[in-house]
Amino acid sequence: MDGDTERRHRPTAWTVFGADGAILAGDALLGLATQVLLEVDGEAGRRAAIMLGAGVQDLVRGQAEDLYFETRNDVTVADTLTMEDGKTGALLSCSAAIGAVLAGGRAELIDGLAEFGSRLGTAFQLVDDLLGIWGDPTVTGKPVLSDLRSRKKSVPVVVALDAGGADADELRAFLASSGEASETQLHHIAQLVERAGGREWTTAEADRQLDECTKLLASLSLPPLVETELLALARFVTERDR
Amino acid sequence: MDGDTERRHRPTAWTVFGADGAILAGDALLGLATQVLLEVDGEAGRRAAIMLGAGVQDLVRGQAEDLYFETRNDVTVADTLTMEDGKTGALLSCSAAIGAVLAGGRAELIDGLAEFGSRLGTAFQLVDDLLGIWGDPTVTGKPVLSDLRSRKKSVPVVVALDAGGADADELRAFLASSGEASETQLHHIAQLVERAGGREWTTAEADRQLDECTKLLASLSLPPLVETELLALARFVTERDR
Repeated sequence: MDGDTERRHRPTAWTVFGADGAILAGDALLGLATQVLLEVDGEAGRRAAIMLGAGVQDLVRGQAEDLYFETRNDVTVADTLTMEDGKTGALLSCSAAIGAVLAGGRAELIDGLAEFGSRLGTAFQLVDDLLGIWGDPTVTGKPVLSDLRSRKKSVPVVVALDAGGADADELRAFLASSGEASETQLHHIAQLVERAGGREWTTAEADRQLDECTKLLASLSLPPLVETELLALARFVTERDR
Repeated sequence: MDGDTERRHRPTAWTVFGADGAILAGDALLGLATQVLLEVDGEAGRRAAIMLGAGVQDLVRGQAEDLYFETRNDVTVADTLTMEDGKTGALLSCSAAIGAVLAGGRAELIDGLAEFGSRLGTAFQLVDDLLGIWGDPTVTGKPVLSDLRSRKKSVPVVVALDAGGADADELRAFLASSGEASETQLHHIAQLVERAGGREWTTAEADRQLDECTKLLASLSLPPLVETELLALARFVTERDR
């Protein structure tokens, strides 16, 4: 197991408290979240806890697919998007809708907010994939070209593989290789992914998901201030540094 | 992180699927258990899910204490028993009582079964501590003298430390040392723990907890067959190979 040593420019929990302690803290927080929801009497608390549980199940499914994809050579763009919808979409979907569940909101509001969160999570993950190759390390807090360094089959990479041709063959050979790649080699691979359309497609897809988010919010007849704030939040998480 | 490579004579999940996959499977199972309980309509399912969540919180607390105790030199027998009550007592307490919660059983039945499970968990853990030093590896599936090998501050060891004197000093020096200990040295340490009363005290305490289990069951006016089965289960988990 090896995780990132920094997130948001701060050391990650496992580097400070050890992997065992960090895992236990995660289990405790998950249990605590469920407890807090179930303290709300009646049907609303129960339904919110069910939503959180379902979200966690989707998240686990997405993370497990992410692990499994590392060992596969036939991952499609659709597979990767489904995986990312689980990994990040489920969490943001649950976060966006659970308040409405607890407040006893109408079904179409709950469903709409859940869909908004799901698409926002996918957009966030697509931007994360772009930053993992073309992001500025001083802004992202990750090493330069980090996703190529770890040979991650992120969306831009899979799009480039799908494009076929000599570039895809070279990229496939790089992903199958092992050992530390030089920075020159990584920059070459990044150019190759860009030339094959990986950057453009991923940027367009992130924008498309964000447009859908905007339309969804407009369709929910939210109080204007709430709509404005949710929209600002959506822009904030997707316009980090691309 | 290093866990046991075998449990009950079978390879542990992380050795087969990797640590990441095994951790995800655990998260998924925990989420699934909560989902199953919350599918039961009304108050019973909600109360059962709360009980499971509280049990998991206790378990995490016990496991975290276990980790923390490895770095401490002043752990008392009482600390260790509280830790073991969390680590194993909470899980068995929840397992014993949750069915009664789901069936809408009376409060004194639920409380009595929870207390039965808690004491049974402690008895189980005490027996586990005995087996970790004096157990037969062909039966336990663990290496001979495994808990001394890993310098674990299990109950017999802490009892021997508390006894004071030259034996306790030698034991304390061994626990503070590092590197692979020889089998001859480990056998010597096991004799020292036994001479200081660690084995006798732990055996007596396990028997005392089991007696309390028997009395608790008798006090609950259970159908005779149920009482017999729970008693057989209690004996099964505590009379493994000591």
